[in-house]
Amino acid sequence: MAQVRVMRKVLASNDALARSQLETLDRHGVLGVNIMSGPGAGKTTLVERTVEKLLDRWRIYVIEGDIQSSLDADRVAARGAGVTQINTQGACHLDGMMMASVFPGIDFAQLDLLIIENVGNLVCPAEFTLPAHHNVTVISTPEGSDKPVKYPLMFSKSDLVVVNKTDLLPYVDFDTDALEAAVHKLKPGIPVLRMSAKTGEGLDAWTGWLEERLNERKGDG
Amino acid sequence: MAQVRVMRKVLASNDALARSQLETLDRHGVLGVNIMSGPGAGKTTLVERTVEKLLDRWRIYVIEGDIQSSLDADRVAARGAGVTQINTQGACHLDGMMMASVFPGIDFAQLDLLIIENVGNLVCPAEFTLPAHHNVTVISTPEGSDKPVKYPLMFSKSDLVVVNKTDLLPYVDFDTDALEAAVHKLKPGIPVLRMSAKTGEGLDAWTGWLEERLNERKGDG
Repeated sequence: MAQVRVMRKVLASNDALARSQLETLDRHGVLGVNIMSGPGAGKTTLVERTVEKLLDRWRIYVIEGDIQSSLDADRVAARGAGVTQINTQGACHLDGMMMASVFPGIDFAQLDLLIIENVGNLVCPAEFTLPAHHNVTVISTPEGSDKPVKYPLMFSKSDLVVVNKTDLLPYVDFDTDALEAAVHKLKPGIPVLRMSAKTGEGLDAWTGWLEERLNERKGDG
Repeated sequence: MAQVRVMRKVLASNDALARSQLETLDRHGVLGVNIMSGPGAGKTTLVERTVEKLLDRWRIYVIEGDIQSSLDADRVAARGAGVTQINTQGACHLDGMMMASVFPGIDFAQLDLLIIENVGNLVCPAEFTLPAHHNVTVISTPEGSDKPVKYPLMFSKSDLVVVNKTDLLPYVDFDTDALEAAVHKLKPGIPVLRMSAKTGEGLDAWTGWLEERLNERKGDG
């Protein structure tokens, strides 16, 4: 199967590239976080709130991935963080080559936190390792609590799951306990944070988790 | 670029396969509809409602696409339609080869409507032609009205857009007019149906559209 062989080779090269890029982050004590979700789960709103809360204490840079448009980068730039928009021109995920095109423009010596917001897609982004210490998957309540069962790879590759749009819980059929059980079946013990990036509920727990990781990286933890 | 050449060849073979499969549908006067959306936009609920409303007049078969699980096929089977679940085992879309594995088990002579519910993904399914006369994209209001700008290919390949979960409009930031304008910028004039598959709002317009297509196919139109 030629197609499979080609794809395996692509994934192996991508892994190697991501490892060397992660070394760049490590050399400067920068924490890298890769945020993934389906379309419209609220990644960008979460990034906006994160920048608002942390930018007075931590130096943050954001890489935005979208097939087209700079809508998300414009929103993040308005919050004061450095940001680059990658347009994948059809590709369903970010990868190491795209990172390589952006990294030379980032001054890692002047940075604490690199947030990568992946393309909105619960499938492909999980297959391509990026220069990040932690993967975070955001699932929103209107999507339904069956998503870990249907899209297991993304959840099993995550270090934290954010259940966003809890403000909509009264109006949608979503079983938070079932979601948590399904996540833990794939990856026992990982934290599942309940959040409304819109109202601010759960935001302190999220930035608390991030700051713990930042302090670990800075060696104060 | 070897990877691009391989992918072009895959897409061309897939197109040829889909064309020959569509001929099978045409030979038996069967209408094929491919429903696409991001995860959790409500495709399966829409299919359930459709089967409930039309099964007394039309013979319906459903092919369900998911990376894993048979959750969706179980739901559709409970409504009385014939159904096959395809598990893509990681692949982010359905394709002609997967259809080829399922087609021999379907008695097209005893069928009016074939509904294909694609993998929940706003990117990849749009690249792989399936044996369907019409593509339908479902977008749900919590996802936000910017989706056609960020995922243009899927919308530009669609013949109908369903805006689902209108029951959540009071609780989310969604501009239906902006969504419609963005869709029409990509594909002028295509119908945009407002719907709540949950409450039944807009369901008559949807089944009306389907029945017009069914009648055209049967030569009564």
